[in-house]
Amino acid sequence: MPDRNASADDRLYLEDFYVGRRFTSGSHAIDADEIKAFARQFDPQPFHLDEEAAKASLFGGLVASGWHTAAISMRLQVTSGLPIAGGMIGIGGEMTWPQPTRPGDRLTVVSEVEEVAPSRSRPDRGTIRLRSETRNQRDEVVQILTARMVVPRRTPAAR
Amino acid sequence: MPDRNASADDRLYLEDFYVGRRFTSGSHAIDADEIKAFARQFDPQPFHLDEEAAKASLFGGLVASGWHTAAISMRLQVTSGLPIAGGMIGIGGEMTWPQPTRPGDRLTVVSEVEEVAPSRSRPDRGTIRLRSETRNQRDEVVQILTARMVVPRRTPAAR
Repeated sequence: MPDRNASADDRLYLEDFYVGRRFTSGSHAIDADEIKAFARQFDPQPFHLDEEAAKASLFGGLVASGWHTAAISMRLQVTSGLPIAGGMIGIGGEMTWPQPTRPGDRLTVVSEVEEVAPSRSRPDRGTIRLRSETRNQRDEVVQILTARMVVPRRTPAAR
Repeated sequence: MPDRNASADDRLYLEDFYVGRRFTSGSHAIDADEIKAFARQFDPQPFHLDEEAAKASLFGGLVASGWHTAAISMRLQVTSGLPIAGGMIGIGGEMTWPQPTRPGDRLTVVSEVEEVAPSRSRPDRGTIRLRSETRNQRDEVVQILTARMVVPRRTPAAR
């Protein structure tokens, strides 16, 4: 029997996903400096950059860019809990930000498989639909992302 | 007549939006170092980090994280072409990435208003639905984001 690569065995293929399977990521605590640094680079608006200006905004205080919440959620899933073979490759999805992320929040992503669909044209892959909730330390949902992702099959489908 | 703040006059209120109104952002050219720096921070996968590893992936070469494309698109809209009064505040939306962003791509965002809806409960605001295409220098679409955003009214609605 050939040697097998132990880490390769942990990777998830289409056959490993079923509707209702859940995954929980590690967590990340966000601080005000991080929120401002992301905002300076990608979303330079007063309520992401400055506490005083943020007080006068719709949010009543400093909040993270929704794209920052999305980027942190991605890192949590890539680095913990969801080792899809071939990587996490999203085709697209729907997202909402029911609440903003604020300094001091500790974020965790909880995902659930909603659909598993073998490709009709390509026997080596399929797609899954994954609903991922990013929650803070009070279990409030700050982001819901329902994404379609490409996942390779361990064994190509028979023609 | 009181002095008026010229920059405040340029800001867009709900009354300024109509279905079919279009906006075009400035542009941004992305390079491999930027792609890798974002990926190290938020999406550490081989096809975003390393040219050689990326060649063996589904993409056949280095590509930007979809969240990087999203973040650059946000910056382009915040800093050029869409000065919504009160800021760009997204509630959520749908997105697809029809093609990846690659090193050397120059991105521009073209947006079109699809819906304008005064709030039923709050006379001082409403929402718009905006479809934003991020295009590269070959006019290929790398991201489509259809987002709902909160927009203040210039004049509160009569009750």
